[in-house]
Amino acid sequence: MEENSERQQRYQARQQRLKEKVDARIAAAQDERGILIIITGDGKGKSTSGFGTVTRAVGHGLHAGVVQFIKGTWECGERVLLQKAGVEFHIMATGFTWETQNKEKDQQAAQLVWQEAKRMLASDQYDVVLLDELTYMVAYHYLDVDEVITALTNRPLHQHVIITGRGCHRALLELADTVSEIKNVKHAFNNGIKAQKGIDW
Amino acid sequence: MEENSERQQRYQARQQRLKEKVDARIAAAQDERGILIIITGDGKGKSTSGFGTVTRAVGHGLHAGVVQFIKGTWECGERVLLQKAGVEFHIMATGFTWETQNKEKDQQAAQLVWQEAKRMLASDQYDVVLLDELTYMVAYHYLDVDEVITALTNRPLHQHVIITGRGCHRALLELADTVSEIKNVKHAFNNGIKAQKGIDW
Repeated sequence: MEENSERQQRYQARQQRLKEKVDARIAAAQDERGILIIITGDGKGKSTSGFGTVTRAVGHGLHAGVVQFIKGTWECGERVLLQKAGVEFHIMATGFTWETQNKEKDQQAAQLVWQEAKRMLASDQYDVVLLDELTYMVAYHYLDVDEVITALTNRPLHQHVIITGRGCHRALLELADTVSEIKNVKHAFNNGIKAQKGIDW
Repeated sequence: MEENSERQQRYQARQQRLKEKVDARIAAAQDERGILIIITGDGKGKSTSGFGTVTRAVGHGLHAGVVQFIKGTWECGERVLLQKAGVEFHIMATGFTWETQNKEKDQQAAQLVWQEAKRMLASDQYDVVLLDELTYMVAYHYLDVDEVITALTNRPLHQHVIITGRGCHRALLELADTVSEIKNVKHAFNNGIKAQKGIDW
């Protein structure tokens, strides 16, 4: 009994110290402004994390826009729900580049959808803008990194932006407030399991 | 002109090889069954990735249930939208454990909400079950890891499960089909920016 009580005291003391640390960090964090979040790395969960954040934002009544770079032409589950909730979607519907195999056409498609992204980034009507898989556009030189940086830098102060995709350009990482790298520890796909509706698209 | 054409040929040859590799992997992946996805690591984006997958699944007409362990009692944006879309939520609404500082009460709350999780994992009515931040419950010994593994192993064959949270137990990682680890490269919170509505909750 005494031992239990001691253990409980130690537990409470430990939790108290943890709470103090967390509270101090919360108190120190005072800025409220739009942040740039980048979700990169080779693991599964980058786009879903972006769409999860959009779901969260829309649930709070924020207005969100989504630009999807190099998505396939198939129906994506998240779009069905989020469009109904008022999220604006623009999709570069040329399929993956290794399917089209036409660099010029891909580049034109990228530029076209980038105009929509630029319009959103310049407008104070959007609280959250998701640029899904934009990183590849920069890596393939379909988009100019300086132009992307200029658009991000000049966006309205309150606007949050989320960029997803592998191999993010260093200059974008430097600009970002929050960067998460998703590592692929293991993936069902490599164990003979098909990409599945509702999970993989 | 000739140089351009050569470059275009090299580009197409490279893309063709990439396409063949991707196609071969897709052809080899034949299984369609519910998978266990774990999103762990200390970076931002674990829960939003889980909720993004739920958004995607629900958009395809799948039925989803969510159990949230150690969430605060505040309103979470994603719940607003997803509940409207028919997602069932069960929330352990005791706040973070470092706020309650009562181990026994936390443990009871965990057990209570775990009963809902077990019910979903035993039912073929749920296509997707998100166990948000379950990892902490196992780490704190609020839930028995063997009981969790039994429930996961015996679930309906078609059911997808997503588990999120830091410090996931090794036995759960071994059981999983897909594991992503989100590394914190940088976080706005550590640069004096407040946790913000629509982004952080």
